Amino acid sequence: MAEFRFINACFRRPVDRIPVWIMRQAGRYLPEYRAVRERTDFLTLCKTPELAAEVTLQPIRRLGVDAAILFSDILIPVEPMGIKLEFNPGPLIADPVRDRSRISALQVPDPGRSVPFVLRTIERLRRQLDDQVPLIGFAGSPFTLAAYLVEGRGSKEWTVLKKLMYTDPVSFHLLMSRLTDMTIAYLNAQIDAGAQAIQLFNTWAVILSPDDYEEFALPYDRRVLTSLKGAGQVPRILFGQGSSGLLELMATAGADVVGVDWRIDLAKARERLGDGVAVQGNLDPAVLLAPREVVIERTRRVLRQAGSMPGYIFNLGHGILPETPVENAIAVVETVHGFLPT
Amino acid sequence: MAEFRFINACFRRPVDRIPVWIMRQAGRYLPEYRAVRERTDFLTLCKTPELAAEVTLQPIRRLGVDAAILFSDILIPVEPMGIKLEFNPGPLIADPVRDRSRISALQVPDPGRSVPFVLRTIERLRRQLDDQVPLIGFAGSPFTLAAYLVEGRGSKEWTVLKKLMYTDPVSFHLLMSRLTDMTIAYLNAQIDAGAQAIQLFNTWAVILSPDDYEEFALPYDRRVLTSLKGAGQVPRILFGQGSSGLLELMATAGADVVGVDWRIDLAKARERLGDGVAVQGNLDPAVLLAPREVVIERTRRVLRQAGSMPGYIFNLGHGILPETPVENAIAVVETVHGFLPT
Repeated sequence: MAEFRFINACFRRPVDRIPVWIMRQAGRYLPEYRAVRERTDFLTLCKTPELAAEVTLQPIRRLGVDAAILFSDILIPVEPMGIKLEFNPGPLIADPVRDRSRISALQVPDPGRSVPFVLRTIERLRRQLDDQVPLIGFAGSPFTLAAYLVEGRGSKEWTVLKKLMYTDPVSFHLLMSRLTDMTIAYLNAQIDAGAQAIQLFNTWAVILSPDDYEEFALPYDRRVLTSLKGAGQVPRILFGQGSSGLLELMATAGADVVGVDWRIDLAKARERLGDGVAVQGNLDPAVLLAPREVVIERTRRVLRQAGSMPGYIFNLGHGILPETPVENAIAVVETVHGFLPT
Repeated sequence: MAEFRFINACFRRPVDRIPVWIMRQAGRYLPEYRAVRERTDFLTLCKTPELAAEVTLQPIRRLGVDAAILFSDILIPVEPMGIKLEFNPGPLIADPVRDRSRISALQVPDPGRSVPFVLRTIERLRRQLDDQVPLIGFAGSPFTLAAYLVEGRGSKEWTVLKKLMYTDPVSFHLLMSRLTDMTIAYLNAQIDAGAQAIQLFNTWAVILSPDDYEEFALPYDRRVLTSLKGAGQVPRILFGQGSSGLLELMATAGADVVGVDWRIDLAKARERLGDGVAVQGNLDPAVLLAPREVVIERTRRVLRQAGSMPGYIFNLGHGILPETPVENAIAVVETVHGFLPT
């Protein structure tokens, strides 16, 4: 088996350099990605293995990052549950899931039949990557998927979601349970197809109080993370944005790595997460809009805050912005690789 | 001078009951507010002392809260700096402030001439309140005002703002300095007119890393808070949303009280803020959309997390939602007042 510095860092083993990848590294800031998107809509791109694999590889060639991440969207596997999905450009579910009958009707299909294109993309990528860097698979956490399913689209206050949660917790837990079953099957199929690490995106945990996270979301994150194949071989990363109030709870979810955004000092984040997990993060993506010298200085600052412990993966605190100059993304990767871990 | 439990709690003195007020307590969830708004647009309402005072008093009558807060908007005092302002329904600045020449041209007017209606509203309210409850004045923090001035409207990523901050910090600091001068004059005029407490809303501090808050925003929050008249008499509250990564820094800003949202356990927030400040918060406003028994149970849970120390004011973690049933807002206030502080 190949030795990957990304995988070693996830398991808090020594590394020669700090590994780095970038959330949304396959994306609009790359001219070669925009060229593909000019002739293909987003959903078709996600569902066509040749194209999805191609855009996954683009940042590997351009940036020299230490991991590839499957190009897809967290809502892709909910479509075959019986959800009509559009992107306009954000996700849009015209007929949101808001009552018991809709929740009960949700299917938990076999990923081999429902999303074969995702598995074919992974198999293709493993051949094309040829162990140059490991491949990360991913899914949305059940709570983040539930947020979109109930609300129908991104929201500022998420009041429809929270109203269901507080008013009909039994239905809400049933929805979470279905989404959890689906997510476990989906991620295990990704691992069987060749994914060498998994990131679970709990993007919208940020809208919950710690009590609500513990009651309505954490048990499902934990069930997903502890039901995955390849424990000790295939690292599991749990990412939350704006989650500095939830870190102690997230540390108990069963992940090998917790990903944090820029809203907390990495030194404090590591202290609060404890020694049981590695940490991933956390440069503000907006820093990459700054002049090159600022980008390099801020990248070094994050590296210094990450400190000297093993178990650290550099990343942005959220997805790279479409208006990012490619040379600044390259400068980040070079700065991380030039920094000597102690 | 009248003794107010709200003021006593701000200064960490003993109280007979825990004081409570609600952010946006004068607002759309009240039918009597909607009745006023049916015949008056938002800016006219802010600028007409009779009407602004009337809607300020509505929640005092309805809810029995322990403080009134001036009805206005944080952007009201930036208009006379030379900014054309609309609400549609969110704030909209058609010609945002993005370069040095626009920043240099910003006026710092005398509030007595630029916003006399705010001062008349406060004077009128003090007469009408007749020391029944104290009156809170407020302003947006310089960073939050800068966010709107540069971006022109609310934003998801605030990239124009951050790009200016990182690319031309000298201009950004000049903008912050002007806004700070304006805010100090504005708040001191409110205090002179009769405001008995001040809340500084740093709503958008949440988008900054702790390092950036310390460099670009905290010095200005501190300059505002330490330049206010009436230290030791007129409590100063600093509110931030999603600020759990910034609490230790906010505790040093010179406020008597730090307001926090629901994204952190109040017990942890108090621990991290230390003994030098009181705390205000932090029920999730969406809880008020739940059935009455859930509202009461969740209110009690916040009260228990706040613990037994003096120096606590109950509030929501953010503004009350327009769809909130009035009876649930009343239930919150009654539950807080029925809870025995220890």
